[in-house]
Amino acid sequence: MSTALNDSTRNGVDTATLFATIDAVKAAPEAARFQFRAHNEWLSGTHNRSTIHDYFGVGDERTHERTFTFEADHPAVLVGRDNGPTPVEYVLHALAACLTAGLANIAAARGIRLSEVRSTVSGDIDLNGILGLDPAVRNGYQGITVRFTVKGDAPAEDLRRLVEQSQARSAVLDVITNQVPVTVEVTTA
Amino acid sequence: MSTALNDSTRNGVDTATLFATIDAVKAAPEAARFQFRAHNEWLSGTHNRSTIHDYFGVGDERTHERTFTFEADHPAVLVGRDNGPTPVEYVLHALAACLTAGLANIAAARGIRLSEVRSTVSGDIDLNGILGLDPAVRNGYQGITVRFTVKGDAPAEDLRRLVEQSQARSAVLDVITNQVPVTVEVTTA
Repeated sequence: MSTALNDSTRNGVDTATLFATIDAVKAAPEAARFQFRAHNEWLSGTHNRSTIHDYFGVGDERTHERTFTFEADHPAVLVGRDNGPTPVEYVLHALAACLTAGLANIAAARGIRLSEVRSTVSGDIDLNGILGLDPAVRNGYQGITVRFTVKGDAPAEDLRRLVEQSQARSAVLDVITNQVPVTVEVTTA
Repeated sequence: MSTALNDSTRNGVDTATLFATIDAVKAAPEAARFQFRAHNEWLSGTHNRSTIHDYFGVGDERTHERTFTFEADHPAVLVGRDNGPTPVEYVLHALAACLTAGLANIAAARGIRLSEVRSTVSGDIDLNGILGLDPAVRNGYQGITVRFTVKGDAPAEDLRRLVEQSQARSAVLDVITNQVPVTVEVTTA
């Protein structure tokens, strides 16, 4: 297994670049200040579209290599036309994606080759909240469950520790399990 | 304006169905219990893909009319290959989409015709958190700002109140600004 441990790319992660990036941020911590953005346009009813392209990071304005667009809507049972997932489903995708990306990086750094990582994220929500029918019911998810299947060339306990460390360093898990201040500004002309 | 106030579809929202749905939930509150799900598969490095299709609601297992798939990745400056937005950018899209869908419903219920709703959601994040370089820095967004432009056939103050009410009834805003319990389970074989 020594070649597996020594080559730079593991799990599709360029570990040399990963460690170099961490060293660069150690030397210049302000490079790690990022601002991400989504630009949204209402289309009709509950149907709207976001564009994700520009962001700030490593001291400069930057753009993704492509412009990504995503549509959201409600299904017919929630008085929409099902042109896209609901906004709350995108949150579940974001959580799965964040934990999984972190897990692959951590595995690479620890010399573990992954063969499979799958997850299902489920969120329970009582729409009596957003419908304004029961003031005791919150608007958002009452609870979220993540079920991971992780396979790789390490003992089960080491694979479980990858998931634990990905939780300890997940941006989206932090956003969901802790509080983020949100400011809303409105222009009407 | 009486025709505008009386016809059932306003802003693409079928208000008759919207009110009927609210009445149905009033009569049978358990119909409002939903479970949404995302199924994620790791591809390589920080690149992974979620599938959104099945959910539970109105007492039954249901599916969206289509299967939605979304890819997430990191850009090259974050040691990825930019095959999709970052997970944290999907959170910003979810917030914009949730506030916008709610706003359109609320405007329809209040008899206001919208002509334009746009928003930019910006999230500030210091990656010294997720890189484990500064224990005083959180993993997630330190703050999020939503900038709305709302135009329609109502005074500016009424348009601003639409945004306020959409904040008061947003599932994603609640998830971001308050705490949601998350449980993680791992299978390794």
